[in-house]
Amino acid sequence: MKSAFATALGAAFLCCSASAHADDLKRQVDGWRAAHETQILTQFDRLLRFPSVAAQPQGTAAAGAWLQSELKARGFQTELLTVPNAPPVVFGSLTTPGATRTVVFYAHYDGQPVTPPQWATPPFDPVMRSGPLGSGEHVVDWKIAKPPFDPEWRLYGRSTGDDKISELTFLAAFDALKATGHKPSVNIKIVWEGEEEAGSPHLADILRANAGKLSSDLWLIGDGPVHQSRRPLIYFGARGTVGLDATIYGPIKALHDGHYGNWVPNPAAMAAELISEMRAPDGRVLIPGFMDDVRPETKAERDAIAALPPVEDELKKEFQIAQAETKDSLMDAIMRPALNIRGIRAGKVAGEAANAIPIDAEVSIDFRLVPNQTPQRVRTQMEAFLRAKGWTIVDTTPDEATRLAHPKLIKIDWEDGYAALRSDMSSPSARAVIAAAQSASDQRVAVVPTLGGSVPLYVFDDIFHTPLVGLPVANHDDNQHAANENIRLQNVWDGIDVYAAMIGELSW
Amino acid sequence: MKSAFATALGAAFLCCSASAHADDLKRQVDGWRAAHETQILTQFDRLLRFPSVAAQPQGTAAAGAWLQSELKARGFQTELLTVPNAPPVVFGSLTTPGATRTVVFYAHYDGQPVTPPQWATPPFDPVMRSGPLGSGEHVVDWKIAKPPFDPEWRLYGRSTGDDKISELTFLAAFDALKATGHKPSVNIKIVWEGEEEAGSPHLADILRANAGKLSSDLWLIGDGPVHQSRRPLIYFGARGTVGLDATIYGPIKALHDGHYGNWVPNPAAMAAELISEMRAPDGRVLIPGFMDDVRPETKAERDAIAALPPVEDELKKEFQIAQAETKDSLMDAIMRPALNIRGIRAGKVAGEAANAIPIDAEVSIDFRLVPNQTPQRVRTQMEAFLRAKGWTIVDTTPDEATRLAHPKLIKIDWEDGYAALRSDMSSPSARAVIAAAQSASDQRVAVVPTLGGSVPLYVFDDIFHTPLVGLPVANHDDNQHAANENIRLQNVWDGIDVYAAMIGELSW
Repeated sequence: MKSAFATALGAAFLCCSASAHADDLKRQVDGWRAAHETQILTQFDRLLRFPSVAAQPQGTAAAGAWLQSELKARGFQTELLTVPNAPPVVFGSLTTPGATRTVVFYAHYDGQPVTPPQWATPPFDPVMRSGPLGSGEHVVDWKIAKPPFDPEWRLYGRSTGDDKISELTFLAAFDALKATGHKPSVNIKIVWEGEEEAGSPHLADILRANAGKLSSDLWLIGDGPVHQSRRPLIYFGARGTVGLDATIYGPIKALHDGHYGNWVPNPAAMAAELISEMRAPDGRVLIPGFMDDVRPETKAERDAIAALPPVEDELKKEFQIAQAETKDSLMDAIMRPALNIRGIRAGKVAGEAANAIPIDAEVSIDFRLVPNQTPQRVRTQMEAFLRAKGWTIVDTTPDEATRLAHPKLIKIDWEDGYAALRSDMSSPSARAVIAAAQSASDQRVAVVPTLGGSVPLYVFDDIFHTPLVGLPVANHDDNQHAANENIRLQNVWDGIDVYAAMIGELSW
Repeated sequence: MKSAFATALGAAFLCCSASAHADDLKRQVDGWRAAHETQILTQFDRLLRFPSVAAQPQGTAAAGAWLQSELKARGFQTELLTVPNAPPVVFGSLTTPGATRTVVFYAHYDGQPVTPPQWATPPFDPVMRSGPLGSGEHVVDWKIAKPPFDPEWRLYGRSTGDDKISELTFLAAFDALKATGHKPSVNIKIVWEGEEEAGSPHLADILRANAGKLSSDLWLIGDGPVHQSRRPLIYFGARGTVGLDATIYGPIKALHDGHYGNWVPNPAAMAAELISEMRAPDGRVLIPGFMDDVRPETKAERDAIAALPPVEDELKKEFQIAQAETKDSLMDAIMRPALNIRGIRAGKVAGEAANAIPIDAEVSIDFRLVPNQTPQRVRTQMEAFLRAKGWTIVDTTPDEATRLAHPKLIKIDWEDGYAALRSDMSSPSARAVIAAAQSASDQRVAVVPTLGGSVPLYVFDDIFHTPLVGLPVANHDDNQHAANENIRLQNVWDGIDVYAAMIGELSW
């Protein structure tokens, strides 16, 4: 027996593959795009040059201001929504005469921190390459090249895939519809935030303060990558997240590890011990109570997962790993919460290593949460676990008296984080989005219960109680969150198609 | 019942505390030193300015050449002994008419690697301070200050305590004896090497190639710190050492840890797991077979340990730790082998942390060995342990085929290292050294079976089968192997006294 979800998905296919309007729209948008590839990339290049990362608030503010001006130029009512010490949310609205539905398009214009020496070319100076780095590719001067460009070219720069591609493709799709004489089918609202990569600490406050002007029938979340099979993807949830940076203290000064080794505590060994107590080699989190809040998967979620094409063997080849941490499929793994070690540092390694017991060890962790876990509960569980293991938790660098009183000292800086969300996969708006997405692609759309990554869906749900659907554009192999982030040109073109469908086709 | 060792030590005390010659010599050496403090420090300053670290071979060569010239100026026959690609051993010899014993004075003129940003002042630009850093001290311009200098002043610079102090105090003691009309009591040979901190990889070859001219009745090893109680110290052994740098491989590129976290293996977590499998929280090494070769302590060693003053409570205060890794005394702990984590690095921490699965993790380890362990056996044991745990060991960065074939890949760069040695604590020459050291000090000399640190005693023993005694000079709190290494002036003065006794008093 098919589930309600599978029936809805099937219905969507039937309905929309037959739509002449949708076929027409896609063909015309493609035609406009083919004639404007240089112009589209010029606009993208401009957006990518703003160093909009947490460490550079001026770069973030400039990116927000530029996006606002682009919306204004297209006839949107615009405003910068903010609270003290937060980068602004770029808000825009455009009413479509006769439309009965209002859709909010969400994306973020900030990027992950950068470590420039790790980049082949500077992260805020976009460079086009003929293919992925290391594939025998070469740099391409797209500004003087003649379109149509090779769709396998890739543009390198921070935030290309995560997540300025969503703003760029929205703007280009809007231009394409206007140029080809298509009217939006819905009222449009824009929410483009500037601190998603920092865990969106002020987003809820900003949304709440502006709840009236943000009312809608649907949120479309433009973030994340498409399916690893390169099929378009629609998602109905995302894992939550909460991060922390922990410092474990050893002796007040580095000590000769011959004279004191195995008498003075070694903080690097203490950090290793702690990590292996919290996390099993197969990724299971061993903190007591951690799994208690995890809600079981629904039948619709199980069915959607079962319908996905397998990607594991291809991914192992792509990532050059012989084995995953678990025998489960990737989708099954990301339906569970995770404890990721983002980084660890103590003493020095290789040629810089001195024969010394380090003074401290620092571990950076992020948890990926699933419904119904919350950052606050995870924090409570982890801190209870630490105390049970004999740790004393401090929130500032300990003084001499504290060091002398407590043998296992750990300082924790918690990020705020946010909870996971998985929304209803079979609502009318959900079916309409799937149908519109399918109309914009010749490939079967992959529909998943959740992204592995985190987008603050929980925040939107908590405030607006409105259906939420995720609409990613980036290639999965875009190196997002790492050095040499990039976007594949075909994903830019596909993104314009799917945004054009959401603006011009969506109805329920 | 007293052990043979305790009896020998008692006899040495009785014999030598009554020596008028020794009292006379010490008084005259102290007098000469008091009149030449600026001159002695000027010579030390010169020696410390050579950047004689492995990364700067020219600095090492220059330090060796300078030391040779200083010996030559004092009438020694000198030579630079070397093999290809090794810094030279500075060799010197001086025959004393009528002497029947020959003593080799060993020290090293190379230092540990430096990380200059961690230093309060540059490591090769010596700076005098009125006390330890952080004690409210101030910088002192000793070049214009008037002696006698405050003996609690400290001179900061790489190799001050480890181990240029030994060469400096030998030279100054030699000058003091000459100026006060004392003749050496033994024939003197000098072996000052230039790659001890790199594990002395060429020392055995150099010594073997020159075994004839290095024959002697006793080796005096000028390396290591004095007792933590600030008493003079004589040691009869040292732990051996073997180090390694291990790289554990994750995905070929950093991956978004939301999309792939708990599916793609995390090399930082793998490194933590491995460390905690190899080393218990109390410092015990868990590698199977690791303790098999450890020889039991002798009665003489147990008695010597029992006679030591307790230092643990003071050290905990000094190091600001609430607790040691073990309930045993420091001396008991360093009679055992150790596995030290010198450093660990994966991904990034704190503000630089990205939400990504790191591509690799690097761990720097040193083992401290005790008799009868050998570096080769430890290497075999660790590699067998790794294979049993499913690791594939490589010696170069793995290629794609290797990565795809092996789920747990580890690259290991082994250092050569050397074995531990503990020599006979009750030989005639041992008793003579203890007696001479006691004659040079008003405090009771601490006599220990082993240093926690490593000096290549094993190499000397293996080639020459000659008694070996360790004669350290540096303060224990000299930050050796770490930033802001320093020497306390009183230790320089005490060092001159003890070297003067070894040159002018030693007889058996």
